[in-house]
Amino acid sequence: MVTKLDVVQALLPKITVPQKSSGVAFAPSNIALCKYWGKRNVELNLPVTSSLSISLSNLGACTKVSLADAATDQIILNNEVVASNTVFYRRIVQFLHLIRPTKDTVFNVTTKTNIPVAAGLASSACGFAGLVLALADLFEWPLALEQLSILARMGSGSACRSLWHGFVEWQVGSQANGLDSYAYPLEYHWPELRIGLLLVDKSQKPQTSSEAMQCTVETSPFYSLWPKTVSQALQETHAALASKDFWSLGAVAEANALAMHALMLSSTPAIIYSQAPTLDYMQRVWRARAEGLAVFFTQDAGPNLKLLYLVKDEAKIKELFAEVQCVAPFEAVPHTAECLYDL
Amino acid sequence: MVTKLDVVQALLPKITVPQKSSGVAFAPSNIALCKYWGKRNVELNLPVTSSLSISLSNLGACTKVSLADAATDQIILNNEVVASNTVFYRRIVQFLHLIRPTKDTVFNVTTKTNIPVAAGLASSACGFAGLVLALADLFEWPLALEQLSILARMGSGSACRSLWHGFVEWQVGSQANGLDSYAYPLEYHWPELRIGLLLVDKSQKPQTSSEAMQCTVETSPFYSLWPKTVSQALQETHAALASKDFWSLGAVAEANALAMHALMLSSTPAIIYSQAPTLDYMQRVWRARAEGLAVFFTQDAGPNLKLLYLVKDEAKIKELFAEVQCVAPFEAVPHTAECLYDL
Repeated sequence: MVTKLDVVQALLPKITVPQKSSGVAFAPSNIALCKYWGKRNVELNLPVTSSLSISLSNLGACTKVSLADAATDQIILNNEVVASNTVFYRRIVQFLHLIRPTKDTVFNVTTKTNIPVAAGLASSACGFAGLVLALADLFEWPLALEQLSILARMGSGSACRSLWHGFVEWQVGSQANGLDSYAYPLEYHWPELRIGLLLVDKSQKPQTSSEAMQCTVETSPFYSLWPKTVSQALQETHAALASKDFWSLGAVAEANALAMHALMLSSTPAIIYSQAPTLDYMQRVWRARAEGLAVFFTQDAGPNLKLLYLVKDEAKIKELFAEVQCVAPFEAVPHTAECLYDL
Repeated sequence: MVTKLDVVQALLPKITVPQKSSGVAFAPSNIALCKYWGKRNVELNLPVTSSLSISLSNLGACTKVSLADAATDQIILNNEVVASNTVFYRRIVQFLHLIRPTKDTVFNVTTKTNIPVAAGLASSACGFAGLVLALADLFEWPLALEQLSILARMGSGSACRSLWHGFVEWQVGSQANGLDSYAYPLEYHWPELRIGLLLVDKSQKPQTSSEAMQCTVETSPFYSLWPKTVSQALQETHAALASKDFWSLGAVAEANALAMHALMLSSTPAIIYSQAPTLDYMQRVWRARAEGLAVFFTQDAGPNLKLLYLVKDEAKIKELFAEVQCVAPFEAVPHTAECLYDL
């Protein structure tokens, strides 16, 4: 069986001690319009299907990596040292093991996020993407973004889509080592598109996406039809993006998210991420749409909803959802240097 | 295409004017443990799968039918005259058309229910079952209950299971005229079993089960796996009933209900019957079970939950769910004569 280390060695046959003292990067969060739900290979985070996302502009993670003269890696998240007995710490350190040039190499990783962590807002996606980009900066790896996408994927599946802004597709690939399972940016440009974040609960979710995903794959009686469902959704999404047909885009994204949650509902044990306010938001979206407003939602492994709408309707959206946080995916993307001034 | 009238004529080649002045009957509500969701023939209410239910003892409908010397049928539901421009009225009158001995025959139908109407508590099931039994009493039809079950099915699918107490199976059948698609009682006797009704909302649901079902069949990407899912659930339910294995019974019933709601969630438009208190009740059931209590739920086309538990745990159930209405399916089943004294 192919290990993560095999893949790293295929991409980076020789990792040498960096010349630079630190590497920095920003990576945006991303929201899948066609969801990634289920792994064909758990070790390498290889997906069952392709997926397609939109990045959240300046919402994401800034990461700085430097070499440290210390006994163990230190990770600082939002100004707090992460305890070494946490899952979070171990997940990152295990990833760092893959690229340590010598066994004595020790890293300091400092990350700041401007989105809630582990609340279904793709924090691990932007976190691992930012880490990989910062490492690439530090080591000055001669790799294309598509290759870095493979590294990010091994940290967290959806992280492979967080290396770009705008629309991104993660192609499923077919190779056992996953070297053809990476993301790439799509040409579609849609400046009028907006994402509205409706945060129901910012606390960490009880079950990780990975666990929920695995439970679905193993127990849902309907999972075998998921690949066909996503494949059709991808086709419809490309068509909607190519023709800038917002109603079609919203309809396919909302249906795909609900189909994913339907799979979870049919798992044993059943997985329900929705909370009472989630249902209330859904009903409000449906009522608004029935009255003619072009608004749709998508939902990930958490209770929060993400609205899809066009800038022309922003005033109305803010009126209906006073607490909405609006994101313009094609505007004001921050540069690494700017966003990292305080790291 | 076979019509309802064809089926009635096959069962009752000649319907003559009754000798009796009235017919009376009681029919219990029933809750499916393996759900009926989807029709292969909408006209005749022929199902895609078999289903299996438990009747709710003395909760149901008492119906009296008599011949009237009037211009139009009169329907009285819970002491109120039903307006002739309602769907409810038309549904019953269309059914009565099937069995009118002469075109001048006019009926008075008086029904009392002790469950909320059209709130996902199988009111149409016990309603049509009670009507068919009352008609059989009035006309003194020489039909077996299995044959009356076919008539009830044409009024409302799940009504065909409401002609008996205890566990009942509705066999899917294969004939185009549906003469082999009827219910029959199962031998399993489980006096310790209890059903706990948790009413979230007693108001009429916005969408009938029939409409929701049809939408699911036509649009859910997962519907093609439903027949296999139910078939397996039926097998597991029979095994659990035969061995009185309550944990298995509860697990398969809960999973089957959630799978049905998953199909609805994946339909276009999505159908969500759950309301905020429904989610809360589910979480409370799951927490209680995690702490060792043998309690499961099932849910139909409405926001209400129905708990499954054993009599030994009733005190604990009442403590956890103060508002629960407890039903003992194998105890104190009322007789027709008694329940109808006030009609």
